[in-house]
Amino acid sequence: MQVDGQPYRSIWVNADGLTIDVIDQTRLPHEFEILKLATLADSASAIRDMVVRGAPLIGATAAYGVYLALRQDASDAALEQACEALHATRPTAVNLRWALDRMRTALTQTAPAERADRALAEADSIVELDVEINQSIGRHGLELIRRIAAVKRSGAPVNILTHCNAGWLATVDWGTATAPIYLARDAGIPLHVWVDETRPRNQGASLTAWELGQHGVPHSLIVDNAGGHLMQQGMVDLCLVGSDRTTRRGDVCNKIGTYLKALAAYDNQVPFYVCLPSTSIDWNIGDGLSDIPIERRGAEEVMEIRGKLPDGGLESVKIAPPGTEAANYAFDVTPARLVTGLITERGIVEASESGLTKLFHGE
Amino acid sequence: MQVDGQPYRSIWVNADGLTIDVIDQTRLPHEFEILKLATLADSASAIRDMVVRGAPLIGATAAYGVYLALRQDASDAALEQACEALHATRPTAVNLRWALDRMRTALTQTAPAERADRALAEADSIVELDVEINQSIGRHGLELIRRIAAVKRSGAPVNILTHCNAGWLATVDWGTATAPIYLARDAGIPLHVWVDETRPRNQGASLTAWELGQHGVPHSLIVDNAGGHLMQQGMVDLCLVGSDRTTRRGDVCNKIGTYLKALAAYDNQVPFYVCLPSTSIDWNIGDGLSDIPIERRGAEEVMEIRGKLPDGGLESVKIAPPGTEAANYAFDVTPARLVTGLITERGIVEASESGLTKLFHGE
Repeated sequence: MQVDGQPYRSIWVNADGLTIDVIDQTRLPHEFEILKLATLADSASAIRDMVVRGAPLIGATAAYGVYLALRQDASDAALEQACEALHATRPTAVNLRWALDRMRTALTQTAPAERADRALAEADSIVELDVEINQSIGRHGLELIRRIAAVKRSGAPVNILTHCNAGWLATVDWGTATAPIYLARDAGIPLHVWVDETRPRNQGASLTAWELGQHGVPHSLIVDNAGGHLMQQGMVDLCLVGSDRTTRRGDVCNKIGTYLKALAAYDNQVPFYVCLPSTSIDWNIGDGLSDIPIERRGAEEVMEIRGKLPDGGLESVKIAPPGTEAANYAFDVTPARLVTGLITERGIVEASESGLTKLFHGE
Repeated sequence: MQVDGQPYRSIWVNADGLTIDVIDQTRLPHEFEILKLATLADSASAIRDMVVRGAPLIGATAAYGVYLALRQDASDAALEQACEALHATRPTAVNLRWALDRMRTALTQTAPAERADRALAEADSIVELDVEINQSIGRHGLELIRRIAAVKRSGAPVNILTHCNAGWLATVDWGTATAPIYLARDAGIPLHVWVDETRPRNQGASLTAWELGQHGVPHSLIVDNAGGHLMQQGMVDLCLVGSDRTTRRGDVCNKIGTYLKALAAYDNQVPFYVCLPSTSIDWNIGDGLSDIPIERRGAEEVMEIRGKLPDGGLESVKIAPPGTEAANYAFDVTPARLVTGLITERGIVEASESGLTKLFHGE
């Protein structure tokens, strides 16, 4: 999508074919900086330190990480070690496992001498597939927005609430929850997006507000506490969120706080849709509440907030008394019963085992 | 309650009887500073700038503000003007109106020459009444906590979630939602409090975490997004929150985000109790959703966060791109149907018109 009027993706291979560039998302929205990944260790730390984040982009970065590892050592042991190191970076997103499984399957069938080239080609195809998937999600979601716009007062914007960043920065391009928004905006449908700040890491304030602004989508930043009130007052027409992992029954694991918005949407009859690539469906898991491991991150993310000082420097400020205990659960699970529908690359489907099975596994 | 081992209230009259001291709550938890109020203007700006906040403490500060005004000019016009200026500071809390009405009623019956003395006595009695009310709320809530503790595994703490600061800093002493917690702690019942950060102004992180820490109550700070997950996982036994205004039908207007926690509590069968003095009941209003004015505050509270720099200075950092629109609704309304019960100074009652009427207006 657009950055200062130029088209960008969130990850790309440099012209020399030897290094991978990513946008350093820890410095947004204050600074737009490109970070070069040259080794497996670079890729793993980019994921772990959330220089890149978002389930699809984590998968893409891991795939290129395997490529970078194999350029140094293409042995079976090195392949296995790379996959393990990358898998250990973040525990919740299922695309990471999907991308690594796909790389491993392709590469174990390839002679070591050809593995690096094959890894690059495979990672490239994961990246292109992500872009296609998001465009398809966008087209299905666009129809939904069109139908809501059709029953609104002429010229009144469709008000969409989103949580965290399931934007193009979380994927390779277009985003999942934002793909319908970008397509609707480009189709001239009046829109306004309520952007949840998304504590503790503020992905809404720092990433979603930034990317919507860069692409000319009207939006307002709100604190995570505000969405319920907005829905009670009829100020939200549609909720669109992403998913880090969706169970075969349609339970949705996404950024902490998603469940609270789903409850408010349900209580106020606001349609609540989850936009997801089929690569984020975990067919092995039925009950999301009991079976998805929820990542716990460091207390400092809760105790501190990073931002821009009046003098322009970036700094973290402490918001709580020294020595305070803090708990930091990164995701929660929204039960399928609260989800109006899942927007996938194959179409919109009920959040249920029968709905998902029919769409993806024939009958 | 305790600050560095010394007992404090949140507001008091100085020995000279001429000025009022308050704790500057905008500097907590980083600095403990006392601010002197000498005039009506001092009192009004202390409320408006949230040096003092919390419905009961706003009422107390306004009462002393009338006293300070009348010391300068005890005419009918000055009394009326003082009440109007103080009433205009914050629109949502009903105690403010209650305290001013009580002052006005007492003072219009008093000759101008005696008004200042009478105002001081009346404000003092508002303050003492608040302390008594909170102690009564605490005793009723303590029984609730005792019953929960009785069915827990021996030694396992009762996990209480609270939102914003309905602590002693929001009142004169004890707090509303915290009064049962302090009494339970002093009674030796094992406790642990989940403290919602409470964006945008972080009253949980900066005030509740601070006052619980000062009084030795075990607690963990969490982001506002986390409570739903904790309740889904059985990690919350009880929610205790305050109220800025309660309608005669039991709808509760409290800090933005309270409604989301009430939804999660209801969805997970976690008891959700609201602690409130009867002075915050608005008998004139039935439907909280349509009839309570919700204060909108400045966008900068959403766009910036104030905290302590590594070098010890206090500073605000910007978290969103420059020029981002932000909406800042300060309160939301939790419908009575989501409230397990109201803990008042007269006892615990169902959140309904019949429950409240029976408790406060006889049959």
